[in-house]
Amino acid sequence: MNARRVVIALGGNALLDRTMADTAEAMRASADVAAGVIAEIASQGWEVVITHGNGPQVGRILLQNETAKAVTAAMPLDVCGAQSQGQIGFLLVTAIRNTFKEKGLDRPVVNILTLTRVRSDDPAFQHPAKPIGPYYGRAQARRMARDFGYHMSPLGSGDGNWRRTVPSPRPCAIEQAPEIVGLVRSGATVIACGGGGVPVVEIGSRLVGVEAVVDKDLAACILAQTVHADTLLILTDVDGVYRGYGTPQQERLSTLTVSQARSLLAQDGLGTGSMGPKIDAAASFTEATGSPAYIARLADGARALSEHAGTRITADHSTPLAGPAAEQRTKTIA
Amino acid sequence: MNARRVVIALGGNALLDRTMADTAEAMRASADVAAGVIAEIASQGWEVVITHGNGPQVGRILLQNETAKAVTAAMPLDVCGAQSQGQIGFLLVTAIRNTFKEKGLDRPVVNILTLTRVRSDDPAFQHPAKPIGPYYGRAQARRMARDFGYHMSPLGSGDGNWRRTVPSPRPCAIEQAPEIVGLVRSGATVIACGGGGVPVVEIGSRLVGVEAVVDKDLAACILAQTVHADTLLILTDVDGVYRGYGTPQQERLSTLTVSQARSLLAQDGLGTGSMGPKIDAAASFTEATGSPAYIARLADGARALSEHAGTRITADHSTPLAGPAAEQRTKTIA
Repeated sequence: MNARRVVIALGGNALLDRTMADTAEAMRASADVAAGVIAEIASQGWEVVITHGNGPQVGRILLQNETAKAVTAAMPLDVCGAQSQGQIGFLLVTAIRNTFKEKGLDRPVVNILTLTRVRSDDPAFQHPAKPIGPYYGRAQARRMARDFGYHMSPLGSGDGNWRRTVPSPRPCAIEQAPEIVGLVRSGATVIACGGGGVPVVEIGSRLVGVEAVVDKDLAACILAQTVHADTLLILTDVDGVYRGYGTPQQERLSTLTVSQARSLLAQDGLGTGSMGPKIDAAASFTEATGSPAYIARLADGARALSEHAGTRITADHSTPLAGPAAEQRTKTIA
Repeated sequence: MNARRVVIALGGNALLDRTMADTAEAMRASADVAAGVIAEIASQGWEVVITHGNGPQVGRILLQNETAKAVTAAMPLDVCGAQSQGQIGFLLVTAIRNTFKEKGLDRPVVNILTLTRVRSDDPAFQHPAKPIGPYYGRAQARRMARDFGYHMSPLGSGDGNWRRTVPSPRPCAIEQAPEIVGLVRSGATVIACGGGGVPVVEIGSRLVGVEAVVDKDLAACILAQTVHADTLLILTDVDGVYRGYGTPQQERLSTLTVSQARSLLAQDGLGTGSMGPKIDAAASFTEATGSPAYIARLADGARALSEHAGTRITADHSTPLAGPAAEQRTKTIA
């Protein structure tokens, strides 16, 4: 019997313990929490492939590069992104390996440096909209735009709300796909596509890193198709998809068809800006494969897969399942 | 026919262009030079596995962490080492992939985050002797020893010659060995064990990163045995092993048996401090496998393998080969 295979996408914020400082100890503790959830899912018989965000972590690496640039050259965003894959990958590999060992799961855990191909003519390159790194005042932002050619954007009112914004092109393909598939088939628990993968474009026959950010949920969608996953599980700090999020009428949606998800995406009221790409990624996976995808809170990961938590995205015209979990799925959007 | 397999160990300095600044452009240019040598070797029919040093690169990451520690927490050395694997791995993966493509070599290139097991009772932990990161004055060195518990050592005369020194325990095993072997067997050109691998010790059943540095040449020796390499090629910025290096009588040695290498290690006169571990690693590989190892300048990599450059280490009592390359091997130590 082939084991079922799940791609788990961990939010960059889900890897940070908000109650603690930005130290390695705090990051290790958060990696241990994520590892506990992953081990719970693996114990239920799933083969696990993991990807993760890197927003807060690469933001700090950029801040270090910026702060120290008088003493050593600052690295561009693609190189910093690769460093964050090493950093987070190391913390996750050790945490997951150790937790597996404690639970008697004998599976190797491996992290592979991943490049994600994007199109050089992606319209996102004309509209750098993804904020990265620290906040700056207007005067400093102006200097950075002049000195480094950065695109700086005011994000909200107040003087200190300027941030660097970079393009967020859509991922097209994962450069290391065959090797990731080979490792998964060999029985390894693979961590790949960290931070969405380092974005590269093809110029002539050369792959060249670009200063951009690939949305990690959209990259997870491609990763899940690449490794022929039976499902995609997107874990975050919200317990599912809401209609009217933040309003008195807010309502968590247990189930969404792809069409319902697309129609929700076209409306307002999704709450945090990061829920849109998650719904987009989940719906795209389900549309391409016919298999379900889930969006849930990190701590609810295992319960979401058994359909007792989070939001499940299903194919249009899918036959409702019978059984005790079915009532969880009765609340759908009109 | 099985292709011959070589593990190539690139020095951290060989990856830096000394004529240029410490920028990403300079690192990319140096990675392209290394990639050219690697492609030349691959074109001769070798299967290639690559490892690399990270001294200068992790030094800069440590410097950035140190400089920015008032604004974001400094990461420990193990985490910084993992970041340097991501950084250098990204530059090498793209450079090698692009050079292969230009030369019509159709091989995937992949970098795997690698942990290296060391013994927690390694005597090196009692004698932190490996200098890392920037130089400091005596007063600042004293503060760092007090505030962070760092072991600070004066390396030469003058006030500004203090550096942090860390243990350099011997590598015991490569944690991701089966996955590296699987990738190599699948035909991929694998980059692994960057910076010697992130050192980990086993505490109970847990693997825990330690603030230490594994010598990358000794790690390369274990990597070469792990992947059943036919040879180990150590590339550096010196054109081979010398007797009486830096003296008027200095003499490059074209061939050394393992016994001769060991006897040379016990003497003085090897020149730069980093040649010792290279000879140690090469001799250990040859002793364990009976197969030859080579030490050569980066640019001479391909010529060293065909025995027209560098120093070749052979097993004791090996039968001398006939043919045109044999005369290259006549100069041996007494």
